[in-house]
Amino acid sequence: MATLQAIKYSRGKLLVLDQLRLPHENHYDEVSTAEEAFDCIRSMRVRGAPAIAIVAALAHAVELHNGDCTATEPEEVIAHIEKKLDYLKESRPTAVDLSNAITLLKLATRAANLEGLAHPEAKEAILNTYIKTAEEILAKDLHNNTSIGSHGAAWLQQQYNASFERPISVLTHCNTGSLATSGHGTALGIIRTLHSEGLLKHAYCTETRPYNQGSRLTSFELVFEGIPSTLICDSMAGALFNLHRERMNIGAVIVGADRVVRNGDTANKIGTYQLAVLARHHGVKFVVAAPTTSIDLETETGSAIEIEERKREELTQISGAIVSEDGTVDTSKTARVAIADQRIGVWNPAFDVTPHELIDAIVTERGTVVKGADGKFDFSQVLPERLASIAARQL
Amino acid sequence: MATLQAIKYSRGKLLVLDQLRLPHENHYDEVSTAEEAFDCIRSMRVRGAPAIAIVAALAHAVELHNGDCTATEPEEVIAHIEKKLDYLKESRPTAVDLSNAITLLKLATRAANLEGLAHPEAKEAILNTYIKTAEEILAKDLHNNTSIGSHGAAWLQQQYNASFERPISVLTHCNTGSLATSGHGTALGIIRTLHSEGLLKHAYCTETRPYNQGSRLTSFELVFEGIPSTLICDSMAGALFNLHRERMNIGAVIVGADRVVRNGDTANKIGTYQLAVLARHHGVKFVVAAPTTSIDLETETGSAIEIEERKREELTQISGAIVSEDGTVDTSKTARVAIADQRIGVWNPAFDVTPHELIDAIVTERGTVVKGADGKFDFSQVLPERLASIAARQL
Repeated sequence: MATLQAIKYSRGKLLVLDQLRLPHENHYDEVSTAEEAFDCIRSMRVRGAPAIAIVAALAHAVELHNGDCTATEPEEVIAHIEKKLDYLKESRPTAVDLSNAITLLKLATRAANLEGLAHPEAKEAILNTYIKTAEEILAKDLHNNTSIGSHGAAWLQQQYNASFERPISVLTHCNTGSLATSGHGTALGIIRTLHSEGLLKHAYCTETRPYNQGSRLTSFELVFEGIPSTLICDSMAGALFNLHRERMNIGAVIVGADRVVRNGDTANKIGTYQLAVLARHHGVKFVVAAPTTSIDLETETGSAIEIEERKREELTQISGAIVSEDGTVDTSKTARVAIADQRIGVWNPAFDVTPHELIDAIVTERGTVVKGADGKFDFSQVLPERLASIAARQL
Repeated sequence: MATLQAIKYSRGKLLVLDQLRLPHENHYDEVSTAEEAFDCIRSMRVRGAPAIAIVAALAHAVELHNGDCTATEPEEVIAHIEKKLDYLKESRPTAVDLSNAITLLKLATRAANLEGLAHPEAKEAILNTYIKTAEEILAKDLHNNTSIGSHGAAWLQQQYNASFERPISVLTHCNTGSLATSGHGTALGIIRTLHSEGLLKHAYCTETRPYNQGSRLTSFELVFEGIPSTLICDSMAGALFNLHRERMNIGAVIVGADRVVRNGDTANKIGTYQLAVLARHHGVKFVVAAPTTSIDLETETGSAIEIEERKREELTQISGAIVSEDGTVDTSKTARVAIADQRIGVWNPAFDVTPHELIDAIVTERGTVVKGADGKFDFSQVLPERLASIAARQL
């Protein structure tokens, strides 16, 4: 399946889509060293927690493959790798996925089986272990996303008895696609799978104010893949459902998640909560797509989730490529413009929490968790080991 | 009450706020001729249906007062006035308020009492009649708005037993303030009255995508008058109600109306409908503020209202004053920038229709119409003569 990829990798070569040039230009940078990866992440040319971790891991794999490490003794080789990984971690110190990936890479490298090996085979074994582990991080993320896509599409197909003759339309919010992950995406992954199976009539995406991930990124992905799609303002979702739900067979709102807690309450991009209220009012299903790594069973309810408030300028100013007098977009020139009274007070929460009562299904790479007849989500189907470990602790 | 005025008038002098420079500059143009008024309207320096009609009517009053008409015979004077009015009508041919004002001015001028008058008294009588009629249009609009403000504030005070000790907060959408009218405003007029009576805790306004009337105009008005206020994205209304309704005592969403039909269904700026759904979900009252001239008793229900769809560039591009590298706004330089993939399909309805089921009260200059126990709005309290005339026709 020819699909949009923010990250293109083959052993010894890594290409990363420059997201700062989106949606106006489709340009890939070759990222061949840890230093180039650091710059790529720091300058925001790549974004999305999984994507950042993958670029960091693979860039170092490329330079190791290309002979960057001149050490010969195993301990020196390992020290070389760890120094580069510690350096890469500083490109985005708060990113949990990056931190987890680095921990995994260090553990795997140290655990390389060197039994009976001397120079140069020992060094080769260490390098190979690192490279394979980095490649596995990429493969696992992609596998998780395609699994979420399959599970979500299957569940929706079943709910609506969707078919080639009677495909369904969906609305999504923010960007949860190839641009934030290794490829395919989570919520947008379900939309991609629906489309590839001929079950998608139309995809709607919101602008996702104030940072416009929908209009800048999701709309780019939808256009790129030729998925029939329409951009709306966040203010238009209600009118869309009211006027076009029946004609367009709008079956679901599908969103990603920053965090899903024990009872199913879900923190996600601001605006998600009111889409859930509007979906419920109009009889449209509300579906959360999230890898099991985003499910936090240690937190009982959404009320414990703290909401970050961001700066006022996200609402009062905006940047973009300059539109010439003749209407063409000049991608070489950008400007930041004021779009509101600069003195007005602003409330800018980054996220909101959607209560589990308004959520119909949570789709993970291990399957779809549907709310039970008791109105509760039971994650034992997808996370039995974690629930067992919590239960054991509580005994 | 020192309040923001888009239009400042005294006999012989008209000043009009240049809304294109808002919210960054607070500049008034002197408008002393029909030609200057035409240019002011055509270039969008003044906007809002009532405001446009008032500027056209008063600009001609100013030039008549200043001796623009050299004719002497009554028929020639009237012809001169009618020619100028016909010219002014072309500044915005679709504006119903402008068209109605011109019809009224022509009828009044032709009906001037010239009995027993010869030159120059006959000419003076005609000019005086025109000038007084134009001034009455201004006075009537302002009176209507302050009446709406009083009726709306009184109704809300009663609903919540609001007081200086327990003031209420409200949310508004789009711009319905001094900038669109002779002053005070409709929905924003209620907010001004609540504030002046010490009953307002806080006013929230939405950005009102895609044309940002909330962030550009309403936020300017709120800041100008020192009303405690906060700008939010359209996507944040649900989260605002959910998190802060109790703490901030958020009692109502107050909006204007493009048209209210017989059963109370209300067409207004896109995004209004979903605010009504969200208000209902959170137990917040939903109030429409509209002069009786906006009530269309000839149309039975909202389903008969056609929704204009506007151009895609309203979502994919935006204009504003350039923000310098040091963060200052340079009001002398503006730019238009692309903020979305330029190829994405766009749905951009200008309005939506809120069904009367979701509306709690409709506030007019003649009083507040509250939904009856039968779930129906009865406009006989405010429009008995129009309802009687319809009933008579149906006999």
